[in-house]
Amino acid sequence: FEAMFPTLVTELISGIRTSESIPSAAVDYIEQMVNYTVPGGKMNRGLTVLHALEALRAADAAPGAGGALSEADVKDASVLGWCVEWLQAFFLVADDLMDESVTRRGQPCWYRRPEVGTIAVNDSLLLEALMYEIISKHFGDRGDTYIRVVDLFRKVTLRTELGQLLDLTSEKKAKEGGNGLDFSTFTEETHRGIVVYKTAFYTFYLPIACALILAGEKRPAVFAEAESICKVMGEYFQVQDDYLDAYAPPEVLGKVGTDIQDFKCSWLAVKCLQLATPAQRKVFEDNYGRKDDANVAAVKALYRELDLEKVFEQYEEDSVKQINALIDNVKDVTPTIYKDLLAKVYKRKK
Amino acid sequence: FEAMFPTLVTELISGIRTSESIPSAAVDYIEQMVNYTVPGGKMNRGLTVLHALEALRAADAAPGAGGALSEADVKDASVLGWCVEWLQAFFLVADDLMDESVTRRGQPCWYRRPEVGTIAVNDSLLLEALMYEIISKHFGDRGDTYIRVVDLFRKVTLRTELGQLLDLTSEKKAKEGGNGLDFSTFTEETHRGIVVYKTAFYTFYLPIACALILAGEKRPAVFAEAESICKVMGEYFQVQDDYLDAYAPPEVLGKVGTDIQDFKCSWLAVKCLQLATPAQRKVFEDNYGRKDDANVAAVKALYRELDLEKVFEQYEEDSVKQINALIDNVKDVTPTIYKDLLAKVYKRKK
Ligand SMILES: [Mg+2]
Ligand SMILES: [Mg+2]
Ligand SMILES: [Mg+2]
Ligand SMILES: [Mg+2]
Ligand SMILES: [Mg+2]
Ligand SMILES: [Mg+2]
Repeated sequence: FEAMFPTLVTELISGIRTSESIPSAAVDYIEQMVNYTVPGGKMNRGLTVLHALEALRAADAAPGAGGALSEADVKDASVLGWCVEWLQAFFLVADDLMDESVTRRGQPCWYRRPEVGTIAVNDSLLLEALMYEIISKHFGDRGDTYIRVVDLFRKVTLRTELGQLLDLTSEKKAKEGGNGLDFSTFTEETHRGIVVYKTAFYTFYLPIACALILAGEKRPAVFAEAESICKVMGEYFQVQDDYLDAYAPPEVLGKVGTDIQDFKCSWLAVKCLQLATPAQRKVFEDNYGRKDDANVAAVKALYRELDLEKVFEQYEEDSVKQINALIDNVKDVTPTIYKDLLAKVYKRKK
Repeated sequence: FEAMFPTLVTELISGIRTSESIPSAAVDYIEQMVNYTVPGGKMNRGLTVLHALEALRAADAAPGAGGALSEADVKDASVLGWCVEWLQAFFLVADDLMDESVTRRGQPCWYRRPEVGTIAVNDSLLLEALMYEIISKHFGDRGDTYIRVVDLFRKVTLRTELGQLLDLTSEKKAKEGGNGLDFSTFTEETHRGIVVYKTAFYTFYLPIACALILAGEKRPAVFAEAESICKVMGEYFQVQDDYLDAYAPPEVLGKVGTDIQDFKCSWLAVKCLQLATPAQRKVFEDNYGRKDDANVAAVKALYRELDLEKVFEQYEEDSVKQINALIDNVKDVTPTIYKDLLAKVYKRKK
């Protein structure tokens, strides 16, 4: 899987070099940009395409025949897996610029490089267009499969952008809500809507749906079931993310969490507001969304006071129980694809 | 054609409202954004799809049978015509933000509205995704035609983004070229590369290719010919644009040109540097790319001194001669599609 990435980049870049009459320096810039922004993540999303296709083929094979993937399967799954990673890079380049983030995967965000700046907006668009160029190169002659893959990426992209819209407008509204901060939008519904759209579709549903398409799955009910399971898993995943942002040691997490400073509609903030007494609510409102270490410490102290660690553990237990119940109901495809996925994130520490 | 726009928006928005579980306020925001950014242009690009399909059908019809378009043709051409306008809106929202532009079509640029800001990056992405949603709704069940339309928009998008990259990096490089400004990149080659990629593909080739697809055209040579004619027309169109920026009265042009202030690699700047004596070059270098009225006036005086008006008129004559020669060579489809297109822009005043 990892070895496929440089191959894809070489193929893509030499394709542009020969078929487009643009200066060589511009093509070098694109190559650099792709190598800076696409690799370097945990690759969980990309690898899921491969692992899910393995499980699907194994389930289809005659008992005892083993489920080894053909070479063509490995190639197809690796290409689409990297396209999922590529799609994420497209989102992250734009997201970091909009969020004014500083670092990403241990290096400065792409837009913060001196030669880039707001050109990153166009670079993000280029990443998206180049991803479809890869899909077209590898699947363009497969008729219906090509349409299904393109429509899948397209639809997931639209939904992720809808999620970003919810996130950005709720944050902006809360920050600018008349006199001071407005926490009325910090509800479980807002949180769920944002995270399902912004994260769950591209993180969980997209790789599973890629594998289903490659396995030749056509039943709409199977895709609908995948979508509903992946939504619940995505919500669990984001709650973990929000929890780790405040509770994980930075050296394990790989970054310093800033959700409190950034006024995020985090699951912790939602829970805090649900459980707080009027006096505690006042403490929260006076300190949340401020950059000062003292303010951040006050919010974290409040989280401890309300024992949100315990509340999270209970949530995790309930949520995993619910997900397992959904998985136990899966009949039309092997439930292994969902079990593997859950195992990848269950009780994760980063 | 114009009546189709509100229909498309209503259809799209109610589709999102019923199929996506996002708050109604978010859907309202999208509707507002679309109505603010997509209509209001000259609609030349969109109308070209309709006019070119008319010419193609008329040429195919039995002599004397007239070439009236069927209702289905009018609908298909209007949908794709609006998709071309929609694609432009997607580019312009991002471009205005990157260029820090102030007004667009007589109103503030979308990103400058107080409730928007950098959310415009995501809005631009949403415009793109919604355009494919429209294409999918209207052409998704037409198999090969759907693939051809999607691949056309995709490829034109990639090329426009490559053009933006050339534009943005050459501008940034020139502005930051060591000590002061660096005009070494202001050449005819740079200018041609930028304008062909940034403008010609989506302004000329895209609407013509849409009409060809709707007319059932499949010969690759016809599309290749369309591409080469449209590239030359696109270059002519952009040279006009650059000329009008400095020479057209603002009340006719509908905006105040700022290419001189903005340090654009304009055709006028390229010609000026080609024709200038060392002393004149010094005047240019001392004044180009500065905001002060006196600097702008000095550059315009230099343009007059070098009689760039005459140089432009000569260019226009040569260029139109070349385009007409290309059109006279067209044998496989009716040359009317190109003649009409040229007539729309020949000696334009705005
Ligand atoms: Mg972010
Ligand atoms: Mg964000
Ligand atoms: Mg987080
Ligand atoms: Mg601009
Ligand atoms: Mg621009
Ligand atoms: Mg202009």
